[in-house]
Amino acid sequence: MSPRPGRRPGRSGARETILGTAREMFAANGFERTTIRAVAKRADVDPALVHHYFGSKVDLFTASIALPVDPREVLAPVYEAPLEDLGCALATALLAVWDSPHRDAAVAMFRSEIAGGDSGLIRTFLLEVALDPLVARIDRPAGTGRLRAEFVATQMTGIMLVRYVLAFEPLASLPSEQVVEVIAPTLQRYFTGELPG
Amino acid sequence: MSPRPGRRPGRSGARETILGTAREMFAANGFERTTIRAVAKRADVDPALVHHYFGSKVDLFTASIALPVDPREVLAPVYEAPLEDLGCALATALLAVWDSPHRDAAVAMFRSEIAGGDSGLIRTFLLEVALDPLVARIDRPAGTGRLRAEFVATQMTGIMLVRYVLAFEPLASLPSEQVVEVIAPTLQRYFTGELPG
Repeated sequence: MSPRPGRRPGRSGARETILGTAREMFAANGFERTTIRAVAKRADVDPALVHHYFGSKVDLFTASIALPVDPREVLAPVYEAPLEDLGCALATALLAVWDSPHRDAAVAMFRSEIAGGDSGLIRTFLLEVALDPLVARIDRPAGTGRLRAEFVATQMTGIMLVRYVLAFEPLASLPSEQVVEVIAPTLQRYFTGELPG
Repeated sequence: MSPRPGRRPGRSGARETILGTAREMFAANGFERTTIRAVAKRADVDPALVHHYFGSKVDLFTASIALPVDPREVLAPVYEAPLEDLGCALATALLAVWDSPHRDAAVAMFRSEIAGGDSGLIRTFLLEVALDPLVARIDRPAGTGRLRAEFVATQMTGIMLVRYVLAFEPLASLPSEQVVEVIAPTLQRYFTGELPG
């Protein structure tokens, strides 16, 4: 029963140790530069155990940020949508999750990330995991992709905040399709419209 | 030196007591239904003392939410702008404060309000103090004014969050005028554009 020196005690604690370590490393170093191998090393476990518990790196990230669903699965239809439909596709995909039973977990995650002093994890989530697969496609003219993604993030996070976290009425009770109809043109303009300067 | 029973000790503590009481009451009851007289009564001080320390009710609200500036003063040019310029006027007024030395206080207020479990104060601030003077003007067709104001709030809070709280680059360093240019048409559409349903 006594663990080897330098080892965390028992398997039951290993899952939590891996999660905590992953959370720290994703926040500090971002998604791309964090490897399962590095998390395993820092958590002092075998990489196979990380794979065993969590599957892929996106799965590990999803668990570490306490997301109820894999964001890249939710956003798959967006990544595949034609450029001119991105705004509608993104609004539709997000509202489908946010207006589902997953809402509470999504709101809790958002709220705790904003409250926390460190914005590393939400940056990693929004820019590296959720929006990154889109950046190359919306990088027209070259060099604008990241800024476009960030303007998209302003509208997405604003809806999360006002409709779900603050739950202002009547917006909180507006049918999903109507919210999509209102914000899709905004998102589309940020994705593919003219930018100043 | 010993205070009367039922009285808060000394004047030096009265200012803080008034502020805390005002904060609670604005959050619970909103701006309109909170009076200086009621705050004074609950704080067990003379209403004249509240006026002496804080001036008007908007001033008291501004202090209780730890705002560096009177929001209705900041937004005065917006209230007076022609309908078709509201988007640009609002973006310009907000960015002027947020890109000034007042930024830190505004970010701190935003962050602590989101983090707190109670959204009463930020609801009061956004809907009753900041946007309320606009609602009647944008209520076309009748009954849509409040929803329009809330969509405007999604874009405003999203910019606050992504540009200032999370400070994503390159958006955080984009010149104010360019941010205004990008978001003004969005705000304008929410203020006066078509709404579904």
